[in-house]
Amino acid sequence: MHILVIGAAGMVGRKLVEKLAAEPGSLGFDVSRLTLADAVAPDVPAALPGVAEAMTVDLSTPGTAQTLIATRPDVIFHLAAIVSGEAEQEFEKGYAVNLDGSRELFEAIRIEGAREPYFPKVIFASSIAVFGQPFPDKIGDAFFTTPLTSYGTQKAIAELLLADYSRKGFFDGIGLRLPTICVRPGKPNKAASGFFSNIMREPLAGQEAVLPVDEKVRHWFASPRAAVGFFIHAARLDTGRMGPRRTVTLPGLSATVGEQIEALRRVAGEKAVRLIRREPDETIVQIVDGWPRNFDARRALDLGFQAETSFDDIIRIHIEDELGGRYP
Amino acid sequence: MHILVIGAAGMVGRKLVEKLAAEPGSLGFDVSRLTLADAVAPDVPAALPGVAEAMTVDLSTPGTAQTLIATRPDVIFHLAAIVSGEAEQEFEKGYAVNLDGSRELFEAIRIEGAREPYFPKVIFASSIAVFGQPFPDKIGDAFFTTPLTSYGTQKAIAELLLADYSRKGFFDGIGLRLPTICVRPGKPNKAASGFFSNIMREPLAGQEAVLPVDEKVRHWFASPRAAVGFFIHAARLDTGRMGPRRTVTLPGLSATVGEQIEALRRVAGEKAVRLIRREPDETIVQIVDGWPRNFDARRALDLGFQAETSFDDIIRIHIEDELGGRYP
Repeated sequence: MHILVIGAAGMVGRKLVEKLAAEPGSLGFDVSRLTLADAVAPDVPAALPGVAEAMTVDLSTPGTAQTLIATRPDVIFHLAAIVSGEAEQEFEKGYAVNLDGSRELFEAIRIEGAREPYFPKVIFASSIAVFGQPFPDKIGDAFFTTPLTSYGTQKAIAELLLADYSRKGFFDGIGLRLPTICVRPGKPNKAASGFFSNIMREPLAGQEAVLPVDEKVRHWFASPRAAVGFFIHAARLDTGRMGPRRTVTLPGLSATVGEQIEALRRVAGEKAVRLIRREPDETIVQIVDGWPRNFDARRALDLGFQAETSFDDIIRIHIEDELGGRYP
Repeated sequence: MHILVIGAAGMVGRKLVEKLAAEPGSLGFDVSRLTLADAVAPDVPAALPGVAEAMTVDLSTPGTAQTLIATRPDVIFHLAAIVSGEAEQEFEKGYAVNLDGSRELFEAIRIEGAREPYFPKVIFASSIAVFGQPFPDKIGDAFFTTPLTSYGTQKAIAELLLADYSRKGFFDGIGLRLPTICVRPGKPNKAASGFFSNIMREPLAGQEAVLPVDEKVRHWFASPRAAVGFFIHAARLDTGRMGPRRTVTLPGLSATVGEQIEALRRVAGEKAVRLIRREPDETIVQIVDGWPRNFDARRALDLGFQAETSFDDIIRIHIEDELGGRYP
């Protein structure tokens, strides 16, 4: 089977590719060809010589989607996106990549299928940013999408297109609304959500981290390992079980910042917790106040998607996958 | 104020224009200019000489939206659409008009505003086709949009765009999810929903009508007069009361076919009811089975939108507005 990963240089895309390289049977079939596409050159895993190839593409450039689809991949993981902050700053660019890029991908598949029968599986990375406050304490599977960012709007629109193209039989689509991924590896960044990872990752590396919000702030998390698991599970899932509702809110762990810190204390001790410096930032407080806190992700659980059930596990996964299992 | 009606030749568009011509103060301000646009030439009301002009336009043709917006209308009623059945048959045409046409209109406003400050009110005709079964007996204001047609998908996407463009301050948008309009004037047509009106209108005109479904079938209705009232009310509404959630499910009347027939009996007597001929059509039974039956439209009611509360009234409005008040 030929697998295409669009957005293969991103954090989750990279980890998905690593998993496919390490366990090529994890999808339930052989990976005979693996195409890795992104706006910056994706790394080609050494474990897959002659199988994997990298392509540097701009999904918003006309013809790009057709070029990718002309190779008729059997499974397409579509993770490419302009992130939330940038899509909000650069209105046209966000729509060009997140909406038009996704639509052109879907259109390229439809047109290829009209030329010669073709019915790939398409796994689309959506986001809980499709939801906007006010919401109930636990957001259920039938709650409406009222995004408060252009990014969330673009994701919600792509979900609707994915469902309609699937309903019309142009491809077999699944949309995955990812929780906030934590602990995100790498350097601290300026994303408003960055602190949720920073206050775990930096102390585990012996570095100080800034906490800009109150410990009572509650949010919705899954580990990078769980995220990869969601995509693998979606690729194996019989979508006949989903009917025409092709997007699911994925399971996650609802935790307060205080609960994160207690987990860090249990796993890494007081000296890690002491590296968290309180420095309230009213801008971040305001932004985070509009974010979902908790979900009842019953449908995804019924479909077999799995996430962590304790923050201790999320921290241990970071230590295992990013720190070589060594802490302190 | 300059008013633009796109889709002015359609049934609701025409009645909206008639209302503006008959009561030019109904919007709460003077109508100094009225532009009527549609794919077929709209009628210009005789009551508005020198004020109204008609334009024949195809909203899916590049440049059309810019031409309309270059005249900088203050209030834009956007009712233009490829209808449900046609959008389902002609996939590309439906997307070109219902999605791209709406988006190009919104883009033209954004770009005009970047050139020179411009902040029109945009009232967009959406539909309860944004909902797809299964649903609860009463669909609430926070229920998710899972359309089962391309038409419903295109309307749901335009709602999301309308909200995002409003949130970004490009215009002041309101989306209106119209109930099924009944009694629809004119000839019987082949729309699957046509019988809801046919079984009222034809007997009132002394003609036979076919009922293809069971009398227990329940659906969601408002009169053409109520529909015009929704658009007028939206044009006058302070959208500050809506926050970022810019689309409302409008109020309507939930009635079974049996209740429709009882109302016809009360208003027009047994001889009208005898003109309804039962002729079950399994295709229509199946289609109608997937449609919403009832809503809890609390938010729209709180915002002051009003619909009929009895089917007797819906029939009387048809007699007053279409039959010159004369029946039998």
